Amino acid sequence: MEKWMRGDMHPSYRILMGPGPSNVHYRVYQAMSNPVIGYLDPQILACMDEISEMLRGIFQTKNQVTLAISGTGSSGMEASYVNFVEPGDVVVIGVNGFFADRMVQVASRCGAEVIRVEEDWGKKIEPEKIIKVLKEHPGTKICGVVHGETSTGVRQPLEEIGAYCRKGDTLLVVDAVTTLGGYDVKVDEWGIDVCYSSSQKCLSAPPGLSPITVSPKAMDVLRSRKSKVQSFYLDLLLLEKYWGQERVYHHTAPVSMFYALREGLRIVYEEGLEARFKRHEMLGDRLKMELEGLGFKPFAQEGYRLPMLTSVTLPDGVDDVKARSRLLNEYNIEVGGGLGWLKGKIWRVGLMGETCKARNIHCLMGALKEILA
Amino acid sequence: MEKWMRGDMHPSYRILMGPGPSNVHYRVYQAMSNPVIGYLDPQILACMDEISEMLRGIFQTKNQVTLAISGTGSSGMEASYVNFVEPGDVVVIGVNGFFADRMVQVASRCGAEVIRVEEDWGKKIEPEKIIKVLKEHPGTKICGVVHGETSTGVRQPLEEIGAYCRKGDTLLVVDAVTTLGGYDVKVDEWGIDVCYSSSQKCLSAPPGLSPITVSPKAMDVLRSRKSKVQSFYLDLLLLEKYWGQERVYHHTAPVSMFYALREGLRIVYEEGLEARFKRHEMLGDRLKMELEGLGFKPFAQEGYRLPMLTSVTLPDGVDDVKARSRLLNEYNIEVGGGLGWLKGKIWRVGLMGETCKARNIHCLMGALKEILA
Repeated sequence: MEKWMRGDMHPSYRILMGPGPSNVHYRVYQAMSNPVIGYLDPQILACMDEISEMLRGIFQTKNQVTLAISGTGSSGMEASYVNFVEPGDVVVIGVNGFFADRMVQVASRCGAEVIRVEEDWGKKIEPEKIIKVLKEHPGTKICGVVHGETSTGVRQPLEEIGAYCRKGDTLLVVDAVTTLGGYDVKVDEWGIDVCYSSSQKCLSAPPGLSPITVSPKAMDVLRSRKSKVQSFYLDLLLLEKYWGQERVYHHTAPVSMFYALREGLRIVYEEGLEARFKRHEMLGDRLKMELEGLGFKPFAQEGYRLPMLTSVTLPDGVDDVKARSRLLNEYNIEVGGGLGWLKGKIWRVGLMGETCKARNIHCLMGALKEILA
Repeated sequence: MEKWMRGDMHPSYRILMGPGPSNVHYRVYQAMSNPVIGYLDPQILACMDEISEMLRGIFQTKNQVTLAISGTGSSGMEASYVNFVEPGDVVVIGVNGFFADRMVQVASRCGAEVIRVEEDWGKKIEPEKIIKVLKEHPGTKICGVVHGETSTGVRQPLEEIGAYCRKGDTLLVVDAVTTLGGYDVKVDEWGIDVCYSSSQKCLSAPPGLSPITVSPKAMDVLRSRKSKVQSFYLDLLLLEKYWGQERVYHHTAPVSMFYALREGLRIVYEEGLEARFKRHEMLGDRLKMELEGLGFKPFAQEGYRLPMLTSVTLPDGVDDVKARSRLLNEYNIEVGGGLGWLKGKIWRVGLMGETCKARNIHCLMGALKEILA
C-alpha cells in the first residue's frame, strides 16, 4: 500500500499551449468544488437547461437538441456517426488531417461505406471538390468535414458545402472541437446538421464533455432509422429524453463536469462572442509573427490558418523532443508535437480560451529564445 | 444574455442517500481544483498508473488491463459488450432487474443473440439456473450478470457461475457498479473476465468515470476478433495502448476526474478494504432495522440484500413522490424511488462510501419520523 499513499498529488502549473486542454479559469475550478447532487435533482436539471441555452448561443443555433455528451470530444464524433449511419450508408468525408481520418475510421466502424475526398495535410479542401463527389453520389447520407483540423492548424470553409447539403437529404456533420468558442461556428446560417465540440479547448473547461447540437432535419433521420442505434450510451433519442422535458433517466450525469462547463460558458458570455473571436484572431496573428521571427515556418495554408492553433515547421537544427521537453520541464510550458506522419516535423501551438493572452506569448518567446540560443 | 448571467451556482448540500452518486469527501473536491495538465504529461501518466494500481487492489485482480473509462458506469457496461460481441454471438444474461435488462439491450445493439435467464425482481438468480442454460448453449460467448442490482437491492452470488465459465470459453461479464469498494469483488478468485464499476457509488468520487478490469482470457478473445470493435471511443485495444506502456494518444483524458478518482481511491486504501466492507455491512443492517421500525418492509430476498443499497416497500398511506420531495426540499436528503415497474412501489436508500455513516441514518430517521407523523 506504499505507492498510492505517498502523498497528495501536486501537478505543476503548466501554461497549456498545446492542442488542448487549455488553461482553466479559477472560477471553473471553484465551480467544480460545489457539492455533487443527484442526476434528477431539480438543481442539476436547471443547470443542464442553462448549459443547453448557452451552447445554443455559441453554436449560433435554435436547435432544440443541444446538449453536452458525457464523454470527451471523441465521443461527440462517435455520437455524430453512430446515430445517423445505418449499415451500407454512403458517407463522404473530406480528409486533410488526422482527425478527418479518424472520422473515416469511426464512420466505417458504424458500417458506413466511406468515400474519402483527399487533400494534402495543411491545406483546406476546395468546397467544389467535395460538392463534386456529393453530386456523383446523390444518395449520400452524411458529408463529414473538420472545421478546425487540430493536427494541421487549417480552417475549413463550410458555407458552400452547407448550402449544397441543405438542398438535399445529405446531413452535414462538422467537427468544431477546436474552433467552438474561438471562432464563428454558424450552425444554422451555414446549414450544419450535426456539430460537436469539446469542453477543454476554446471553452476552457476541463476535458470530459462534448457539446453537440443536432438539427431537426437530422433528428428526423434519426427517428426514421430502421435499426436501433448501435450505442446505448450515445443514443441521442435517449439523451434527448433526459436533457429534454421528459427527464427520463439515462445515465448518472457527471455533475461536477456540468458545474465546470456552466461556469466556463458564463465566462464566454461575459466576454461576448465577438470580443472573444477578435482576441483569438489578434493574438493568433501575433504568435505566428513572433514564431516566424525565430525561424519557425507556418505549416498551414495562408488565409486558412486557425487563430487558436498555430502549426509551424521547426527551424533547422532544432530537436523536436528535446526542445519540447525543455519547455515543459524547465519552463512549465506545454506545446504540441505533430500527429501521425507530422510527428517530429511540426509543432502545434495553442492559444485557446484562457490560454489566449499576450503574456503567454511573451513567456513562450522568452523560453524559446533561451532554448534556441 | 440575462438568464446565464444571473449568478453563481450554489447547489444545496444534500445528504445523498439515493442509488448514487454518494457524498464526496472534501479532499476529493480539493483534488479536482488541481491545475489541468496535458493528456501525455508525465505527471498525468503517473496519476493514471496509480489509478490502475489501486483499482487492481480493489478489484482484487492481477489483470494488466485495469483502467478507468472516460464515461459513466453505463459506458463501462457498453465497453464490456461492444469489445467482445461479434454479430450473431450468443450471450446469456441473468435478468432480475432494471440494469440486467439494460445489459440485454446493450448486448442486443452490439448484434448479440441474447438468451435471458429470468428471475423475479428482488430475488437472486440461482446459479444452477444460469449454468443449466450455459450447458444447453455450449458455444456461449458471454455470460452477463449484475453483482449488485441497483434497481432492487439484490446481491448476486458469483462464485459458481465463475467456476463454470472458467472451465470453458465463455467470458463472465459482471456489473459491479454498486458493489465495488463496499463489498468483496474478487475478480481473479471468482473467475470474472470483465468487471466494470463507476466512480460515484462506493468509491465516492463524482460521477464521470467507469473503472474496468479485463482478464487475459478476455483480451485474447478481443485480439482474435474478426471484425473491428464497433466503438472507437470504447475500443479496449486502443485504450490499452494509451493506459499501457505505449502511451499512444486516443482521446483527451478527463484529467480533473482522474485527480478526483485517485484521491477517492487513496481514501479507500487509508481505511482498508476489510474495514470498509465491515462498515457498509454494519450500517446497512442498522438502516434496514430502523426502516423496518418505521413500517417499511424489505423488498430484496433475505440473505442477499446489498449492504450499500437498501430497497424497501413503503408503509401504507405513504405517498412516494410527496415524501421524497419533502425529504429533498425540507431536509436536503435524497433517497431513490423505484425504477421501471417498481416506480411508486419501493424506495432505494443508499449508504455508499462517504455517505455510509451512522449520523446520516440518524438524519434520515429523524426526518422520516416527522414526515410520517
